[in-house]
Amino acid sequence: MQGQNPVFIPGPTNIPDRLRHAMNMQTLDHRAPDFVDLLTPVRAGLKKVLKTETAEVVTFPGSGTGGWEAAVSNTLSPGDTVLAARYGMFSHRWIELCQRLGLTVQVIETPWGEGAPADRIEEALAADKGHAIKAVLATHNETATGVRSDIAAVRRAMDAAGHPAMLYVDGVSSIASMDFRMDEWGVDLAVTGSQKGFMLYTGMAIVGVSRKALQAMETAACPRAYFDFRDMIGANAKGGYPYTPPLQLLFGLGESLKMLLDEEGLDAVFARHHRMAEGVRRAVAAWGMKLCANRPELCSDTVSAIYVPEGFKSDALVNHAFRTYGMSFGVGLGEMAGRAFRIGHLGSLTPSMALSGIATVEMAMADLNYPITLGAGVAAAQDYYRTTAGVPQQKAA
Amino acid sequence: MQGQNPVFIPGPTNIPDRLRHAMNMQTLDHRAPDFVDLLTPVRAGLKKVLKTETAEVVTFPGSGTGGWEAAVSNTLSPGDTVLAARYGMFSHRWIELCQRLGLTVQVIETPWGEGAPADRIEEALAADKGHAIKAVLATHNETATGVRSDIAAVRRAMDAAGHPAMLYVDGVSSIASMDFRMDEWGVDLAVTGSQKGFMLYTGMAIVGVSRKALQAMETAACPRAYFDFRDMIGANAKGGYPYTPPLQLLFGLGESLKMLLDEEGLDAVFARHHRMAEGVRRAVAAWGMKLCANRPELCSDTVSAIYVPEGFKSDALVNHAFRTYGMSFGVGLGEMAGRAFRIGHLGSLTPSMALSGIATVEMAMADLNYPITLGAGVAAAQDYYRTTAGVPQQKAA
Amino acid sequence: MQGQNPVFIPGPTNIPDRLRHAMNMQTLDHRAPDFVDLLTPVRAGLKKVLKTETAEVVTFPGSGTGGWEAAVSNTLSPGDTVLAARYGMFSHRWIELCQRLGLTVQVIETPWGEGAPADRIEEALAADKGHAIKAVLATHNETATGVRSDIAAVRRAMDAAGHPAMLYVDGVSSIASMDFRMDEWGVDLAVTGSQKGFMLYTGMAIVGVSRKALQAMETAACPRAYFDFRDMIGANAKGGYPYTPPLQLLFGLGESLKMLLDEEGLDAVFARHHRMAEGVRRAVAAWGMKLCANRPELCSDTVSAIYVPEGFKSDALVNHAFRTYGMSFGVGLGEMAGRAFRIGHLGSLTPSMALSGIATVEMAMADLNYPITLGAGVAAAQDYYRTTAGVPQQKAA
Amino acid sequence: MQGQNPVFIPGPTNIPDRLRHAMNMQTLDHRAPDFVDLLTPVRAGLKKVLKTETAEVVTFPGSGTGGWEAAVSNTLSPGDTVLAARYGMFSHRWIELCQRLGLTVQVIETPWGEGAPADRIEEALAADKGHAIKAVLATHNETATGVRSDIAAVRRAMDAAGHPAMLYVDGVSSIASMDFRMDEWGVDLAVTGSQKGFMLYTGMAIVGVSRKALQAMETAACPRAYFDFRDMIGANAKGGYPYTPPLQLLFGLGESLKMLLDEEGLDAVFARHHRMAEGVRRAVAAWGMKLCANRPELCSDTVSAIYVPEGFKSDALVNHAFRTYGMSFGVGLGEMAGRAFRIGHLGSLTPSMALSGIATVEMAMADLNYPITLGAGVAAAQDYYRTTAGVPQQKAA
Repeated sequence: MQGQNPVFIPGPTNIPDRLRHAMNMQTLDHRAPDFVDLLTPVRAGLKKVLKTETAEVVTFPGSGTGGWEAAVSNTLSPGDTVLAARYGMFSHRWIELCQRLGLTVQVIETPWGEGAPADRIEEALAADKGHAIKAVLATHNETATGVRSDIAAVRRAMDAAGHPAMLYVDGVSSIASMDFRMDEWGVDLAVTGSQKGFMLYTGMAIVGVSRKALQAMETAACPRAYFDFRDMIGANAKGGYPYTPPLQLLFGLGESLKMLLDEEGLDAVFARHHRMAEGVRRAVAAWGMKLCANRPELCSDTVSAIYVPEGFKSDALVNHAFRTYGMSFGVGLGEMAGRAFRIGHLGSLTPSMALSGIATVEMAMADLNYPITLGAGVAAAQDYYRTTAGVPQQKAA
Repeated sequence: MQGQNPVFIPGPTNIPDRLRHAMNMQTLDHRAPDFVDLLTPVRAGLKKVLKTETAEVVTFPGSGTGGWEAAVSNTLSPGDTVLAARYGMFSHRWIELCQRLGLTVQVIETPWGEGAPADRIEEALAADKGHAIKAVLATHNETATGVRSDIAAVRRAMDAAGHPAMLYVDGVSSIASMDFRMDEWGVDLAVTGSQKGFMLYTGMAIVGVSRKALQAMETAACPRAYFDFRDMIGANAKGGYPYTPPLQLLFGLGESLKMLLDEEGLDAVFARHHRMAEGVRRAVAAWGMKLCANRPELCSDTVSAIYVPEGFKSDALVNHAFRTYGMSFGVGLGEMAGRAFRIGHLGSLTPSMALSGIATVEMAMADLNYPITLGAGVAAAQDYYRTTAGVPQQKAA
Repeated sequence: MQGQNPVFIPGPTNIPDRLRHAMNMQTLDHRAPDFVDLLTPVRAGLKKVLKTETAEVVTFPGSGTGGWEAAVSNTLSPGDTVLAARYGMFSHRWIELCQRLGLTVQVIETPWGEGAPADRIEEALAADKGHAIKAVLATHNETATGVRSDIAAVRRAMDAAGHPAMLYVDGVSSIASMDFRMDEWGVDLAVTGSQKGFMLYTGMAIVGVSRKALQAMETAACPRAYFDFRDMIGANAKGGYPYTPPLQLLFGLGESLKMLLDEEGLDAVFARHHRMAEGVRRAVAAWGMKLCANRPELCSDTVSAIYVPEGFKSDALVNHAFRTYGMSFGVGLGEMAGRAFRIGHLGSLTPSMALSGIATVEMAMADLNYPITLGAGVAAAQDYYRTTAGVPQQKAA
Repeated sequence: MQGQNPVFIPGPTNIPDRLRHAMNMQTLDHRAPDFVDLLTPVRAGLKKVLKTETAEVVTFPGSGTGGWEAAVSNTLSPGDTVLAARYGMFSHRWIELCQRLGLTVQVIETPWGEGAPADRIEEALAADKGHAIKAVLATHNETATGVRSDIAAVRRAMDAAGHPAMLYVDGVSSIASMDFRMDEWGVDLAVTGSQKGFMLYTGMAIVGVSRKALQAMETAACPRAYFDFRDMIGANAKGGYPYTPPLQLLFGLGESLKMLLDEEGLDAVFARHHRMAEGVRRAVAAWGMKLCANRPELCSDTVSAIYVPEGFKSDALVNHAFRTYGMSFGVGLGEMAGRAFRIGHLGSLTPSMALSGIATVEMAMADLNYPITLGAGVAAAQDYYRTTAGVPQQKAA
């Protein structure tokens, strides 16, 4: 009532007015002949965001978790072995999901704070002489730790091992915010959702499916119905949907793609995310605090996970910021619970908005007697933002 | 641009401004401590709509089809037998979905235009001495034919046969528009979605789960992950969600429940739907045309499926109405393809809106040389609506 | 709550979603350097709608009545004589307003149902040898009677009399819906507002000011401040506004002009209004009722005023339609009070919407025992609409 | 596109979503019998905000400037003398407006940075033995200088002089944000608008009219029509409006009054504004810069006008902040042009939002080589905000 702060959770993101308008539609007929005029450019645009020319892209009403399930259940069979590294809560959950679907997961336990270990993946694949491993799973951006993995390196490792497994990548919190190259990296299944880089409401799982994955689909024996690629691809090919489509999100996606691809351009989008993130990282350094990401090149441009000093509880910090200042940050998850908090900095943000988040964390930390100086993180971020300010940031909505 | 007509598809429905506002929200933190204050009344309200005191209600990001899958996969095991009558496109699709998930479906083929045949269900169950049948599936409102089945009768048939199978009911296009009594009818799994009687955007599957179904869940062996009741119920119990919730739709549902339960009242909602429907049926009679529903007591109050006269193509009619008058009706599906069109009359409608649909169909029929008199159906509906008009219909939004 | 009917008042109109979105903006800085990028095309577009190349166009926060005052007070002096015909409530009110501002109004009393009497205007001007008359006032579309006057004829009358008076035209309920030619007709002051043909919220008065009027402005002695053209024109020239502008309506106007001028085109807009209106008139004829407009060529394309039969009270009809069917029509005003009701048919409408209005009036009339046949007016309008249906009416918003 | 910053102009304010929803309405009939149900509580609520029990409140489609004109033209006659102090751009403009309307203004020139000089007003009134002065004009909150005047002191001065002049107060940028007591202070005409403390779109002038002013109205000879109180009061008394009302803003006002009066409470609203303002003032002090307000007790809680150091141009600063950081502040006006910039801090704001404004100004100042330390103002404001943080700031919209 007394003002509305931006959120600093690592998705769903702050939604630009323009996308709220696009999604605030009255019901239209999804079986009407003009539905295809909506669907076709959306699918084409998604391919550009995924940087693929050969893959199919399918969209399901569901969350990103539904995308994980769709990717796996459509291309594998019960009992199949998949290789996956666990280095955060979201890689962990995908592993669990595979197990529930009857797959055998060969887990490479990796320290949280690291990314996908290309060397150990290569090792494991090289050791798999019989090619029992059908899939390698990698979480591009581990939202729990703020770590971006090097997917190109994973692909090189797979190639080096000469292994035919398919590559499955969770790009939920990276795609449309950080560079993702489906074709170049040889990704077979790429999973994302509507509520992160696309800045829309939660409710659409988006999956890129390579030619190789489409072939695997023909023989995959995992039972599936709702998320069945075949129905979706078949219906899409005729300009339709196998069931009631999330029309609102398709309209939103159409507008979002226009903004990302046609107006700002992907490179500018990525650079903007990097700039927002780097300002936050400067603040963290000024506070004398440590990121969960072990090395600079691992730092995510969409979310920063930050260790609180010894003796402090990150949940208390997040809770306090919410209750006292009405601002939302991410709590620590899994191994990071209580030890780290997260600042989401993806989607629709300005330096000024980022600074409001940094300034608010500082107040909350001071309230809880953290050893920080008010304004210190803000000043570091200001210094960075102002020296990297190029062009005007805002146009009339 | 030149005006916006209501839609007359059988869902998604026309969305009242008030619900559009409720859903047009800026992002809030779904992990914040106040999320539970949103979720709790929504779950309580859904139980009232389902008329259950003992069941759990779960909500998934997904369409109604996802609800079908959730109901089945959480409570049955591959190889289990289910008994289902096929009497329309949506009962057909649910059967297919079961088959994909590895269930054996014992199908009772029923003429389209009829509802769930309680007598034949009783027969089949009585014959199943070994209780191989684990579930009876019934489509409460068959959206393809405009037929409402008598679920109480199905329950009586099951009881008469003394059979322990669970009762699964698809209430996607009936719940919140027509009377539904989960506890009284002994429904074990009740499936619906956000985009019909709740008048929201597509994107949420809602499932009522009886105590008996919850027990079955413990041993059910169908693989499931995204739609797993256990995760959802466990997370909900702690005031959370197993993954990113469709926050927008939860807000919408909160407002919709307020309108349905607290303001209008379910009985008034059902009476209103009946009145809208009956007006449409009077128009159909005045046109000298036949409903797909074989008998008056089978007529759905949310959708009317109407046979076109011999020699005419219903698709052409629907297409023409869309292209020439910008108004959407439902095409015939499955056996009804080409032979019938559908007028959806659920959700947010007034007699005046219904009359605009009837008048527009008449123009389209006249354009295509149907043997009808312009204004005849309108007059019949007007006569019915005006003689049943009681109280003021519209208040300021 | 149970559905939303279109309104059939003669403005404000039903607002298309697209314009609601354009006006649903977050606050922007009206003193920012980009304000001029908003204002400039709006002013240019308004000139196109007024069909003037030489006039200035000014916009004030206010209603159409404010536009009347602005036109008069900026160009005349206390004691000046103006010539005005009174043929309805709105011409009457403009006369009254002039009197309040200290002008002498020479009134030509004209039967309601007639338009501006060019012959009597010519007479009066011819008789005014001393050129005491400074202005001729004409109401282009008299909203109270549904009469469109022939402004070109008024101009010809003025020219025939060789009289130098300026021509002031109230185009509030005509401009942007019916043809208006400021330059060709030699209109000096043209007044309209945001809430009629532009389909926006009430709140902006729009005035076209000819070169001659601008000259008169220099010597006009009526006191004025808020509505002072000089401040507005001066500020506009520098890309600004003399006080806080109605930013929302300027954004709305920008979008509305795009729709009217760039997408549909004025001729198509006028033709659409004529078609909507003619359908309503056919219904009126089928009811055996009479329009207030005395002759077909006087019929307005934005509003029809309809006499109720002897012995009936039009207010009761309008009231009943509102209370029983939730639909709004216009009551009779002034001389027409109780004797006529009005159907507004301007702005964003489809034939289907118009039919819902016609059908609802019929129900209300039947309820009140009017001697009409249900469906008769609808059928007449259907017949007209369907035989004049050309191209698709509706595109996705 | 890349994020949306709050505005820091001194009105129009950032609009809460809830008010945007209330104003984003489809057209309803302003002549319908339920219009009065909207109007009545709005008028009653406005009286509570003005703290009057005896005055009438009228609302006109127009800006605050229209309110000035309405107040004056309805209660005075050409040639009347009014006494007014000039101490900023807005008091200056009101003086000018009076002159245009034919009034004689006795101006007390007062240094900008001071408020209404009660002593000199008393002096002038005491000297006016013949009671030629009919009105005393005071600007409660001078938006150009960020100075709040002591209206109670002005009233005491008038009483001390035993002078019967009426008291006219411009409360455009104070009412609903800072305490205003119409009855207690003996204010006869109180003027405000929709776009400041009420947080709505620009477009409604609101005027409180005392009993004494209502009497003056009967004999006032200034010509007026659009803004005529008599028409408005007469129509309002019958539950109507003299012309098309700004329905959208009445709905917005209804919701705004609910928020201000029923939910937050006026005292809490004023305390919140004071807290926001004081944080900004702490930042200004930390920068080593000076407010235009000469003394602490003069400081406005809705806007701070801040002198830039010698040798700097405030317009360049405001311009740079807009172009480089997409954030809007107020420029210096009149005497303050180039010498001061303004931070608006009224309406819907949180400490976090205020900090984003302060942090952004700092970046802009650093860019332009102001002698400030990045983060210094932020730290001072943080310190203040966090030590005054009481209760949770934000609830779900």
